[in-house]
Amino acid sequence: MPPRLDKLYAELDKAGLDAVALNPGPTLAYLSGLRFHLMERPVVMIFAPGQSPAIVLPELELQKVKQLPYAVQVFAYGEMPSTWDESFQKAVKFLGLDGKQIGVEPRAMRLLEFRHLRAGAPEAVYPDASAVLAGLRICKDADEIAHMRRAVRIAQEGLEATLPLIKIGMTEKEIANELVTQLLRYGSEPEMPFSPIVSGGPNGANPHASPSDRKLQPGDLLVVDWGAAHEGYISDLTRTFAAGQVAEEYQRIHGIVQKANSAGRAAGKPGVPCAEVDKAARKVIEDAGYGVYFTHRTGHGIGMEGHEDPYMRGDNLQLLEPGMAYTVEPGIYLPDRNGVRIEDNMIVTESGVESLSDMPRELRKVG
Amino acid sequence: MPPRLDKLYAELDKAGLDAVALNPGPTLAYLSGLRFHLMERPVVMIFAPGQSPAIVLPELELQKVKQLPYAVQVFAYGEMPSTWDESFQKAVKFLGLDGKQIGVEPRAMRLLEFRHLRAGAPEAVYPDASAVLAGLRICKDADEIAHMRRAVRIAQEGLEATLPLIKIGMTEKEIANELVTQLLRYGSEPEMPFSPIVSGGPNGANPHASPSDRKLQPGDLLVVDWGAAHEGYISDLTRTFAAGQVAEEYQRIHGIVQKANSAGRAAGKPGVPCAEVDKAARKVIEDAGYGVYFTHRTGHGIGMEGHEDPYMRGDNLQLLEPGMAYTVEPGIYLPDRNGVRIEDNMIVTESGVESLSDMPRELRKVG
Repeated sequence: MPPRLDKLYAELDKAGLDAVALNPGPTLAYLSGLRFHLMERPVVMIFAPGQSPAIVLPELELQKVKQLPYAVQVFAYGEMPSTWDESFQKAVKFLGLDGKQIGVEPRAMRLLEFRHLRAGAPEAVYPDASAVLAGLRICKDADEIAHMRRAVRIAQEGLEATLPLIKIGMTEKEIANELVTQLLRYGSEPEMPFSPIVSGGPNGANPHASPSDRKLQPGDLLVVDWGAAHEGYISDLTRTFAAGQVAEEYQRIHGIVQKANSAGRAAGKPGVPCAEVDKAARKVIEDAGYGVYFTHRTGHGIGMEGHEDPYMRGDNLQLLEPGMAYTVEPGIYLPDRNGVRIEDNMIVTESGVESLSDMPRELRKVG
Repeated sequence: MPPRLDKLYAELDKAGLDAVALNPGPTLAYLSGLRFHLMERPVVMIFAPGQSPAIVLPELELQKVKQLPYAVQVFAYGEMPSTWDESFQKAVKFLGLDGKQIGVEPRAMRLLEFRHLRAGAPEAVYPDASAVLAGLRICKDADEIAHMRRAVRIAQEGLEATLPLIKIGMTEKEIANELVTQLLRYGSEPEMPFSPIVSGGPNGANPHASPSDRKLQPGDLLVVDWGAAHEGYISDLTRTFAAGQVAEEYQRIHGIVQKANSAGRAAGKPGVPCAEVDKAARKVIEDAGYGVYFTHRTGHGIGMEGHEDPYMRGDNLQLLEPGMAYTVEPGIYLPDRNGVRIEDNMIVTESGVESLSDMPRELRKVG
């Protein structure tokens, strides 16, 4: 049995779970190496300690299962949806799971997979196993850290190559397209963690804006939140730029966010609660009088997903451990005017914390 | 009220549903124009006839709701997950929906959103409203068809620009990266429908392969399944190429699939059941003795999603109507050897059917 499954089974045992049922996503990829797009045909793999894992999937995906380095019980179905429940029933029966505790991942599993699974095991209970599963992935090993380091390097090189091409009058979409092109050129996998956020002027005041047809104007702040992917691991960075000369207040809030980013980055080390990282960054912004404009937590875990455990949030008392990876991304958002965010990717070491990203953080001019 | 909501409410009424609850995805974008990435913070919008729609979302997404052209009741929550259920409860109470019939979309909604929704309306029933919702989107209007036409043109131009750059010895990943770069250059939105499938030799025998580090070898068939996005509408095409000279059998199966593709494309028109499109393509492959190697349905609907209604499947008696859009994509997959697929995007017209894609379908050489 691969070490990751051994660890899973030990954790299921501790949590009192008889099994865990996963649909395609990062946790399934982590445990099995299997990657599928989420489609209208449900795929569910069930792991129960002491038995071979079982997978229910469409016949046309059978080739993917052949690459697995351990025995798997396969329950394949054809193209008629009316036959799918039967495959789920057989899988559940094979593992003897009806009436048992089958953990699920609510953030990944859709009602599509869940309702077929429940049709196969109507008497089972389906507790939220997110914490158990997130715990397996939360501390990155040396290979994972190497992949993330490379994903950060690709992202930084891609943005540096894009910056000289940004001109006043380009739309956010045009800038985003150019950035993606450069990310691919510098080696990102095409399956990126997320489409870059490129937002200028008032759009930058929306932390989750999508690139629009708005043209970059002199005096804008320009927020670029982007990442790259390498071997299924990702980076997630943000820098804020000035389109020519920007107003004094915008320079000032950029300086405040830069200090908050430094304080947040410095706050992490083994044994420190995640909440302390949030507080360290937030205090700088609050002390400067902009606390009400920092509308989100300071960061989130990162690895195979853009957002994963641990979260840098004021109520999260989880202690940092070596191998944990997370973002530090304080921001100030002035509604309908401009926004600033500066985001780095951190990895907890044995004695402290390292920033994987090192692009200049001061307010650089573009255009 | 916008016409799309008027139509939704009429259909809910017919289906006996009191409301529909949607999480981010194509249907929500179609009805509201709102786009969000699926993240760990649940977003749910609830539409109940005769009332303003209600939306539950994180405070940091509030800016997005301001752009809506009609009144929406907003229930925003902060960063502490312990407070989220309360926002759902308020939204459900505002609409008076507990104990009622709230339709959901199992293919889009995750257990994450569903469990919070159910915490707000524990007595409600949550029937599958997929058919009602798919029906709203199934016939494309002139604007939608224009977007799809453009997405096809971008895809074709991007692949034509890539073909001369493909060389024997390149890996599938390298070819896929080059293709994505060209798709962006020719105007695709960065948020693509799916990462291109580029699979050579035995990998082509897996219809859903991901690009690997395998190098293109002389004698390989090379399957390229790719698309582009324009204004949220997508294309989804496949062509199969020959890396230099390929064995006679591979040339033959390519010819068979090309004939099956022609037969499938010719079979559609208003009033014809989807099953007939499948049968027309499948018959060509079965008559040639390769029926067992055509392991999937002939096609799927296309529009805002890569796969949507209507499905070209032998058991689907749904009748084609003007404005329906779908793929015709027969294939032959010889396990551990090679595969062929040829895919076009069709739109049903008043009197027949039009192929939006027109790239040459014969076996062209690359490398």
